[in-house]
Amino acid sequence: MSDNKNNNNNKKRNNNGGNNNKQNGNRPQHSSKRNSRAAERELRRNQDDAHRQAGFDDVVSDADKARLAMKQKQANQLDTGTPKLKVIPIGGQDEVGNKNMTVIEYGNDALVIDCGFGLGVDLPGINYAVNDITYLESIKHKIRGYVFTHGHLDHIGGTPFVLPKIPAPIYGSTFTLGMVEKQIKDSDMEIDYEPESVPMNIDNHERLKVGPFFVELVRVTHSIPDSSAVVIDTPVGRIIHTGDFRLDPEPLDQHPTDLDRLKELGRDEVLLLLTESTNTEAPGRTPTEHTLEQSFHDILHQSRGRVIVSSFSSNINRIQMILNASVESGRKVAIDGRSMLATVELAFKLGYMKIPQGTIVPMKDISNLDDGDVTVICTGSQGEPNAALQRMSMGSHNHVKLKESDTIILSSNPIPGNEVAVMDNVDRLMRTGASVFRHRTHELDGCGPLHVSGHGNRDELKEMLEMTTPKYVMPNHGPFVHRKRYIEIAKSAGIDQDRVALIDNGDVLEFDDKGKMRQDGSVPAGSILVDQTGALVPNLVIKDRLLMSDDGIVVVILTVDKQSKRLLSSPDVISRGFIHMQERSDLVGALRDQLRDFANKRIRRSDLKQFKQELRDEASSFLYHETQRAPMVIPVVNMVGGGGSKQGGGRNAKKPQQQKQQQQRKN
Amino acid sequence: MSDNKNNNNNKKRNNNGGNNNKQNGNRPQHSSKRNSRAAERELRRNQDDAHRQAGFDDVVSDADKARLAMKQKQANQLDTGTPKLKVIPIGGQDEVGNKNMTVIEYGNDALVIDCGFGLGVDLPGINYAVNDITYLESIKHKIRGYVFTHGHLDHIGGTPFVLPKIPAPIYGSTFTLGMVEKQIKDSDMEIDYEPESVPMNIDNHERLKVGPFFVELVRVTHSIPDSSAVVIDTPVGRIIHTGDFRLDPEPLDQHPTDLDRLKELGRDEVLLLLTESTNTEAPGRTPTEHTLEQSFHDILHQSRGRVIVSSFSSNINRIQMILNASVESGRKVAIDGRSMLATVELAFKLGYMKIPQGTIVPMKDISNLDDGDVTVICTGSQGEPNAALQRMSMGSHNHVKLKESDTIILSSNPIPGNEVAVMDNVDRLMRTGASVFRHRTHELDGCGPLHVSGHGNRDELKEMLEMTTPKYVMPNHGPFVHRKRYIEIAKSAGIDQDRVALIDNGDVLEFDDKGKMRQDGSVPAGSILVDQTGALVPNLVIKDRLLMSDDGIVVVILTVDKQSKRLLSSPDVISRGFIHMQERSDLVGALRDQLRDFANKRIRRSDLKQFKQELRDEASSFLYHETQRAPMVIPVVNMVGGGGSKQGGGRNAKKPQQQKQQQQRKN
Repeated sequence: MSDNKNNNNNKKRNNNGGNNNKQNGNRPQHSSKRNSRAAERELRRNQDDAHRQAGFDDVVSDADKARLAMKQKQANQLDTGTPKLKVIPIGGQDEVGNKNMTVIEYGNDALVIDCGFGLGVDLPGINYAVNDITYLESIKHKIRGYVFTHGHLDHIGGTPFVLPKIPAPIYGSTFTLGMVEKQIKDSDMEIDYEPESVPMNIDNHERLKVGPFFVELVRVTHSIPDSSAVVIDTPVGRIIHTGDFRLDPEPLDQHPTDLDRLKELGRDEVLLLLTESTNTEAPGRTPTEHTLEQSFHDILHQSRGRVIVSSFSSNINRIQMILNASVESGRKVAIDGRSMLATVELAFKLGYMKIPQGTIVPMKDISNLDDGDVTVICTGSQGEPNAALQRMSMGSHNHVKLKESDTIILSSNPIPGNEVAVMDNVDRLMRTGASVFRHRTHELDGCGPLHVSGHGNRDELKEMLEMTTPKYVMPNHGPFVHRKRYIEIAKSAGIDQDRVALIDNGDVLEFDDKGKMRQDGSVPAGSILVDQTGALVPNLVIKDRLLMSDDGIVVVILTVDKQSKRLLSSPDVISRGFIHMQERSDLVGALRDQLRDFANKRIRRSDLKQFKQELRDEASSFLYHETQRAPMVIPVVNMVGGGGSKQGGGRNAKKPQQQKQQQQRKN
Repeated sequence: MSDNKNNNNNKKRNNNGGNNNKQNGNRPQHSSKRNSRAAERELRRNQDDAHRQAGFDDVVSDADKARLAMKQKQANQLDTGTPKLKVIPIGGQDEVGNKNMTVIEYGNDALVIDCGFGLGVDLPGINYAVNDITYLESIKHKIRGYVFTHGHLDHIGGTPFVLPKIPAPIYGSTFTLGMVEKQIKDSDMEIDYEPESVPMNIDNHERLKVGPFFVELVRVTHSIPDSSAVVIDTPVGRIIHTGDFRLDPEPLDQHPTDLDRLKELGRDEVLLLLTESTNTEAPGRTPTEHTLEQSFHDILHQSRGRVIVSSFSSNINRIQMILNASVESGRKVAIDGRSMLATVELAFKLGYMKIPQGTIVPMKDISNLDDGDVTVICTGSQGEPNAALQRMSMGSHNHVKLKESDTIILSSNPIPGNEVAVMDNVDRLMRTGASVFRHRTHELDGCGPLHVSGHGNRDELKEMLEMTTPKYVMPNHGPFVHRKRYIEIAKSAGIDQDRVALIDNGDVLEFDDKGKMRQDGSVPAGSILVDQTGALVPNLVIKDRLLMSDDGIVVVILTVDKQSKRLLSSPDVISRGFIHMQERSDLVGALRDQLRDFANKRIRRSDLKQFKQELRDEASSFLYHETQRAPMVIPVVNMVGGGGSKQGGGRNAKKPQQQKQQQQRKN
């Protein structure tokens, strides 16, 4: 049992580390005040998380060390004693639509629900964030499968990172698994992995036994085909995970949420409902998607020129709706944008779209048609750089040069954080003279609504609660502010606050064999940053990038004779992103003089390492004094002569020391 | 007249340059796809503008050269012939609340209305943007004064940059001029300048003769005391500039917009109305500020703990309202946040606030009071980093540690672009257990409204038009999308589209002696970026920062014997923000080998400049091939021996070449 004790210790220490993500008072403050605001915010969010990918001694915290120990000790070790049911959100408890992933663990078996990534990271050179899977790796031997609620990227985007490392069968609806397979196949990473797909029927109450669990998928309506809630019957009780849902009674695909089945499941005891919380601040119900049909019909019929509609590529119902209206108004349809093309192709192949023959034309052919016969459905409604609509607005699209007779529809609302990008794009679109329709201003423009949310509002969230009558409920898929609001909804459905679990990423919900819930510690959770090559980017690298982008970089280079310890040439000074030094040759000259004097005084009196530190301090304080700026200063001391050996100043040049550090890390 | 002709040529060339800001198709695309989205957007917006602060030959465009020529030739030169009236928006025609500045020019005289800066710049190390004042400098001898509509920073923030360079008397209401004087005094810049203030009464129709112009200020209601419209009677006709306004019939200070005077002015012919366009997408009228009184009253009476209210520091009416409600509920008031303290002090000193004696307590003393007796009014409602409320949410505030009994009110709406920062802050605030009230969710929280806009909605904009009955109208203070909407409002007031001028920053509106309007070319306009030291930051520096922050920097250093052209040591490689090279010692080793071989082959065959270019290309392509990343590579070649001379590789080290370039620039 000593191992177990050790584990507990580790968990406690991890817990402390993990708390840094939540209790903001303890967060280390970024030293510079001059970062762009977005970057500063992101850095705060990510720096603790990123620390732990680590690999550098100077930033390895106690929590990191505990994590490493956990990895080494816990893997391949079996739980003994009375097993408990654990529910652990690894991701999804912060921003809306961000790295959703939940572990359901019982004894020596575990299932993972969803495996998303986060696209909303605004750090230099970073494409997206994936979950820290330290914990998953520590229970690798337990993981019996991944179950997916639906095919949005915040639920499946992390699969190329996680599945090859921790392979297990994947469960989900046919469309969802198609999206997962595509995600893995199209990944920028070079991975040699094919998932073991187990498609499930989401309409006939099919139940699969996976380890000690029974898994069932129940159809729900969302903004992508064949979304489902996940039902997991565990030895301790039933868990229902809603996935993302709304209770639209009349979705275009005529497959509404399976209310009967949910009610039926609710008649047996439901131990825990995991429910999304996106629209806990929106009263009433989300309008049915059908309300949009007339709007598209009207605009497509009335416009005499081309109509360009931009929406989310995964919203197949919406795209079908625009296709239908186009066919009715005698228009051909061209699809543009990589993700739009790929998703429509998949949906069509799997039978999720009905496209009359001859409707679709390639983008390059639309110039052969009359403008009034053309609809373009494309990406870019969120102002994404390089998306099709963005290129059109900038005049850099290969096939569409916008003109006054064109009509553009943005069939979406800006996701928080995208407001400025969307408005910039709208501004450019309107400057072309084209008519631009947005949902937010549809009443001013005299047209019908152009977007509805894919998430249920407060009344629908309440209805879900009333159907499933759970003993406990845990809101997920959102920031604290949205999840806290859920307490009001629970209360309105007769569920007290002490039955609502407001827990953060990594927190462990534990259920004993009587089904009693308590929160017990937490496991590693956080963000790992990924660049466009699919490679992980350590926090130190990001820190350096932010420091450099604040005030630039200054490299000071001394060339010193190894024997005599004399400067062989005048100090060299190079800068980038600092100030415009061509105009400040006086400053460069003065810095050189200063450094020459300094070197002559100090170089014989201190060892090389110390001298370089002093050199950096000297240059930094001189530059700060002269410019009130604090660029990153890199001191380089080239020792020349005496057999050609040299000593660079960079972090990367310290080869012997580096090996020593690696040694230390292993100990 | 040959000079004049030259000027015209210059204008045309400037026009082409200026068009880059508007016709996005022509914009140079930033080479990297990996910038954070916000930064990429900003770069696009600013790079043409910033080019022209220039100072480096490689980016001086034709437009820049034309600009320089204009400066040299046009200054101190008098217009002859029949003078025309010109109206030129230098700033304010892009985002909402951004660098408002308009030139009114007639013959050899000109007035400048407002002189704001832009705070919404999200570029590394940049605090804000000011207007390019190349044109103002070219007509420096004509400028008779600056007239200010009100004291918001987007209307007065640029004064510390512009006024000392182009001094002239400043006109405005007492409060507005107080804000301008404070702005200049508190500037980070070291300036030895005191403005020549001419306070004007905004209620008694006082008219001042300034050159050939008559200037009058007319009271309007906005969200800062003593805002005014500006009336300028010119030899060609009357111009009315609304400033920012709404038509609140019952503002708290009992000084509504002077509708009678506006109607009276409208009965004479008004040639041109310059009108704000912030809320052209909002139907109806802005609710009166009075609707908020009850909300504050209720929350302050019902809360048993401390109440912390965050709002805009300049909204003196709002602050007075919160003060009143605090006094009524027996609370003392502490003011926190630098700008909040400064503005309240100014307003109190000038008699714009009524504060019963003993109401205000210092922040440090609130811990001596019962919680129920405390109101804190502070900054931070926009999620600004380091603002008082932000520090409270992070637990780093000196005097306020938040707790469950606290109540926080955010009395504002997020300005576009701040949504995520505000939500992050709200999330942290809610995690403390405190009650948080926001305007957007006030109905869910069962309280009254907590914010109203300071700008009039569509019906108010229409009413302004109907009161002043102008011949022409030019919407300003907003992006194209808002200004275009104004056409609908003008139409509803019987004004055809051809009488609405939709022009951009720098575009020139010209009126002949019969008062006929036409757009005639444009003058330099754009953004100059300023860092926190108050210094201008050239575009090249920003470009370097963005490049470095994308993929980092790699410095490769060769030390070469000057005589023998042999490497004196192994190549040195230093990187920051690239990849974690400690883990990639293989990569560093391979790069060194590659560079050593390369150097031995090439160094004797090309001159130093060419060799360094080749060295950079060699390292770049090696690194790209190995990592699929493109860090900025700086080649440094240290020539040692033969008298101690050396040749660094940096931009700054090229002293002789630099002088040559500067020479060229002058020619």
